[in-house]
Amino acid sequence: MADLSLNGIPVEDTFAEAFDVAGTAIVVTNDTAKWAMIAATVMTGFATSVIGCGAEAGIDAELSPEETPDGRPGVRILLFGFEPNGLKEQLLKRVGQCILTCPGTACYAGVEGPTKIKLGGAIRYFGDGFAVAKRLADAQGRVRRYWRIPVMDGEFLCEDSTRAVDGAVGGGNLLFLGRKHADTLKVAEIAVEAARGVPGAILPFPGGVVRSGSKVGGRTKGMMASTNDAYCPTLKGRAGSALPPECGVVLEIVIDALTSAGVAESMRAALHAATEVGASHGLVAVTAGNYGGNLGRHHYHLRDLLTKPGAA
Amino acid sequence: MADLSLNGIPVEDTFAEAFDVAGTAIVVTNDTAKWAMIAATVMTGFATSVIGCGAEAGIDAELSPEETPDGRPGVRILLFGFEPNGLKEQLLKRVGQCILTCPGTACYAGVEGPTKIKLGGAIRYFGDGFAVAKRLADAQGRVRRYWRIPVMDGEFLCEDSTRAVDGAVGGGNLLFLGRKHADTLKVAEIAVEAARGVPGAILPFPGGVVRSGSKVGGRTKGMMASTNDAYCPTLKGRAGSALPPECGVVLEIVIDALTSAGVAESMRAALHAATEVGASHGLVAVTAGNYGGNLGRHHYHLRDLLTKPGAA
Amino acid sequence: MADLSLNGIPVEDTFAEAFDVAGTAIVVTNDTAKWAMIAATVMTGFATSVIGCGAEAGIDAELSPEETPDGRPGVRILLFGFEPNGLKEQLLKRVGQCILTCPGTACYAGVEGPTKIKLGGAIRYFGDGFAVAKRLADAQGRVRRYWRIPVMDGEFLCEDSTRAVDGAVGGGNLLFLGRKHADTLKVAEIAVEAARGVPGAILPFPGGVVRSGSKVGGRTKGMMASTNDAYCPTLKGRAGSALPPECGVVLEIVIDALTSAGVAESMRAALHAATEVGASHGLVAVTAGNYGGNLGRHHYHLRDLLTKPGAA
Amino acid sequence: MADLSLNGIPVEDTFAEAFDVAGTAIVVTNDTAKWAMIAATVMTGFATSVIGCGAEAGIDAELSPEETPDGRPGVRILLFGFEPNGLKEQLLKRVGQCILTCPGTACYAGVEGPTKIKLGGAIRYFGDGFAVAKRLADAQGRVRRYWRIPVMDGEFLCEDSTRAVDGAVGGGNLLFLGRKHADTLKVAEIAVEAARGVPGAILPFPGGVVRSGSKVGGRTKGMMASTNDAYCPTLKGRAGSALPPECGVVLEIVIDALTSAGVAESMRAALHAATEVGASHGLVAVTAGNYGGNLGRHHYHLRDLLTKPGAA
Repeated sequence: MADLSLNGIPVEDTFAEAFDVAGTAIVVTNDTAKWAMIAATVMTGFATSVIGCGAEAGIDAELSPEETPDGRPGVRILLFGFEPNGLKEQLLKRVGQCILTCPGTACYAGVEGPTKIKLGGAIRYFGDGFAVAKRLADAQGRVRRYWRIPVMDGEFLCEDSTRAVDGAVGGGNLLFLGRKHADTLKVAEIAVEAARGVPGAILPFPGGVVRSGSKVGGRTKGMMASTNDAYCPTLKGRAGSALPPECGVVLEIVIDALTSAGVAESMRAALHAATEVGASHGLVAVTAGNYGGNLGRHHYHLRDLLTKPGAA
Repeated sequence: MADLSLNGIPVEDTFAEAFDVAGTAIVVTNDTAKWAMIAATVMTGFATSVIGCGAEAGIDAELSPEETPDGRPGVRILLFGFEPNGLKEQLLKRVGQCILTCPGTACYAGVEGPTKIKLGGAIRYFGDGFAVAKRLADAQGRVRRYWRIPVMDGEFLCEDSTRAVDGAVGGGNLLFLGRKHADTLKVAEIAVEAARGVPGAILPFPGGVVRSGSKVGGRTKGMMASTNDAYCPTLKGRAGSALPPECGVVLEIVIDALTSAGVAESMRAALHAATEVGASHGLVAVTAGNYGGNLGRHHYHLRDLLTKPGAA
Repeated sequence: MADLSLNGIPVEDTFAEAFDVAGTAIVVTNDTAKWAMIAATVMTGFATSVIGCGAEAGIDAELSPEETPDGRPGVRILLFGFEPNGLKEQLLKRVGQCILTCPGTACYAGVEGPTKIKLGGAIRYFGDGFAVAKRLADAQGRVRRYWRIPVMDGEFLCEDSTRAVDGAVGGGNLLFLGRKHADTLKVAEIAVEAARGVPGAILPFPGGVVRSGSKVGGRTKGMMASTNDAYCPTLKGRAGSALPPECGVVLEIVIDALTSAGVAESMRAALHAATEVGASHGLVAVTAGNYGGNLGRHHYHLRDLLTKPGAA
Repeated sequence: MADLSLNGIPVEDTFAEAFDVAGTAIVVTNDTAKWAMIAATVMTGFATSVIGCGAEAGIDAELSPEETPDGRPGVRILLFGFEPNGLKEQLLKRVGQCILTCPGTACYAGVEGPTKIKLGGAIRYFGDGFAVAKRLADAQGRVRRYWRIPVMDGEFLCEDSTRAVDGAVGGGNLLFLGRKHADTLKVAEIAVEAARGVPGAILPFPGGVVRSGSKVGGRTKGMMASTNDAYCPTLKGRAGSALPPECGVVLEIVIDALTSAGVAESMRAALHAATEVGASHGLVAVTAGNYGGNLGRHHYHLRDLLTKPGAA
């Protein structure tokens, strides 16, 4: 099925089709890295698909005290939504439920961009009139606005707003066709680690991996999406299967990023990392998912990702 | 402010007011404990309050292969909602987005109870007509029904339904009034660990702890709930503060359980564990939150929790 | 059961307990009054309770061309939510789905108030960069900002923002205890008409009337709210019934308003209108619903509503 | 732009692309036709798009007492969702908020089909243990199950379940290119009336008409959908406009139906009715919207709709 190859692994000459989405980032800090991660993990939970969860979210990076506005350990969280209004709604809900509530946390803008999204400026209502605004210059000398919202452990310091970027993209993807489950999962895990290493990119599914690929529509029953039977190993015998005989398992990774270049580089890193260990883990081939190209504006051709990361 | 004491720590003679809620449980297994926990963590994320998130959820226990239906490592997840229909909706969404999607997982009923909640019987639609039912006797000889839903890594095995219990309770709570943040957080962490040790009880907030206690209504602005200024240390100087002068931080734990006895035992375990380390961590007092008693049907008087866990 | 009376109808000496909510208003205009009403009816549908629908909404008034910013027929819509952020979210969703979509409509701020809520300023994103801002002085000489968003029937003119008020109240109510269904429904319809006549007040339930009164909690099954059995005529024989023997039907009206005075005046108007026709329609008594007084900050004592509307 | 014509109006040789959706129906009755319609109107409000509102809904038909299960006036409501689980959730929410609450209403299954959807069987929980089941034979002699749920005006009689159909389709559509707004709106209204006349078909937008056509994606800003600039008359001067010079307004109708044939017949009826009055109302052309054909499984070619309704 493949016309290309990388590290000896066949790579199908196809493309991942991805979509314009709305994207933003915040930085969450705490007295300890442990509690920053606790808050971030809860906030980014149940955020695997915009349609099913309202948002796609993930942890972009753990930040050292030198990298955060308040000199405490932190985490950078990315959040993606269908459109700017839906993104704002999800950001406020998730910060209000998972960051405001968590002992010790503070919350800052995590990205520059053209569109303001109220953060502390909206959550301050919880302060019932006791919240106070505060202006401070940041390390670059720019004046920034914060809210100090009284809570039971002192104050929740929350920046007035963060920014939505232009150009975020959702739905970059790779499909790993393997022989055995444990081996292919190992390949996928290595791919996830590489993909996550690219700044500004997250993989919203559990552990970064998906096994429930879907097709548009279904044979029956009013499903707008249903299992992608062409890629189900147990249905390999049927007409329409896209799987070679030796393939026993398919795993997918899905990538959202603040920029289209971020999706490309994250896919590239994953493709290289996966194929490097592919031969020793029974990797049969790598491909990508698309809708024929008419739906999403962004097409990432695997052919273009064969050169090494950073080689350009 | 306190008329009682435990382990030398003042305990206010008051009660936690809690509510009837709808509750259920599932068991998620995987080839490895690591991936069972990945799926469970994502599924129980963004589930800190029913009003804000649609559900309250948490991990009840890690299960050894001996404790699961398929002999693989697993996790027991509890999920709570306002009422049975809302609970079903959240269970399906979260299993569909976070368990169906996760490589290797299977999903089973996690509790007996009077009301059936469709699980695999609903998710099978994703299988687009390829899903097949399967009946198997469980270890107790009861015939159970499962669905095998084709996915890209093989099949998602999902029990046809789980059960909602009668008698689940949400909103058990304790408030720890401390001197310093790190010390009081340590007390709260120890309380959380003890509270979680009670089977059938979870603590839905990040790390089990809340710092954004709220009161009903507010002074202005159309808030149905706002910061509980009486318990905010930075507002201690104001009339109406409930905090003694030496209190610099208040942390709360909130408990949901499948039974009322579970809430009581979980609160009891937390109260004892917290007060045992309280003297060495500057714990000023322990109290609990209520709405005057007219709203929630369940009142957990701290007075009744002073005897040791298991002493009854 | 009643210690007071009005127009010969017993009135229980009790109070309606209501809540601070977030509230806003918009004005929707169209070339014809018919199409303004079509858009408003769809936008305010499925908006009977904040918990169940995300918002409570209704039509405050039909406006003549002289009363609208663009000299076309219009409708004033009120929308209420739990808190300001939830209100914004619902306003945008409902305007985006039901007003932006409807041929011929324009949309304006419908109330002054301290808090800005983006309207056109958020919906303009739909315009994909083709939307243009426009500043115009209104009749009072104040400069206002609008967006002209290209759509297939020309442009959707939408004011940049509306305002959320301080002091909105949700949950004013009256209960009409009657003998026969049709008669009592007639009393309720007359009460609704009177209550709706007060500017700034709406009745969010179908036709303004509710028959499914609820109590907090339930006997079993994890319901946070369930049927108010004390007011169910078919359960009159049971201990705990609050209904006199001659009562065969109870209907409730629920009122939300932009001000607390609006709730009071709307309840007052309804109480007087209902009791005036009560004797000829078998009205047994009028009462109101509360939670003991600890939950909602606003208490409307029926005793205070016995003087005539406008008599003060 | 058109290769076909009907009643002298050019018809583009293209197709409407529509989707498999989940669909169901209920019948709502009341003592009066007025109150049946009040309940139905509120229940089907804010239901213009599945993505934005969670459901698409509309009134299929007013029913005479002879046509309903309880011999009272009634309304048949259709409800459509993404997939069966989402459909159930929306049905329960909307019946619980808008039908259970409304004085005098009863609720029955409105369609046969392969999949059961709990209705009274789920809402009975509101009855707090007081609801009682009741079995009755229907007019065809089949035993049906109902729940009698005590409410303040007596009992809410609600059938245990309704059915989801196989084969429902969402997104049939026609676009009317006109000269003047009022004339084209008149054409659209006539088309809506004809389209609604087909049993099992509804038009979910306000008044059945849409003016905010959208394209997939956008030029900027993270929109997954944005205004369909090619069909915006104010952008006619730009490259990429699909509008002929004489076109000053475009209005769309969108059709959902329980069967694919229902969509086709509804589109056919609308196409004929619109073109019949087109010449006298400045109708420039009729076309339809699609995504290139790769996305939705159902393609309704206008070419196939040129023969008269019922002519086949």
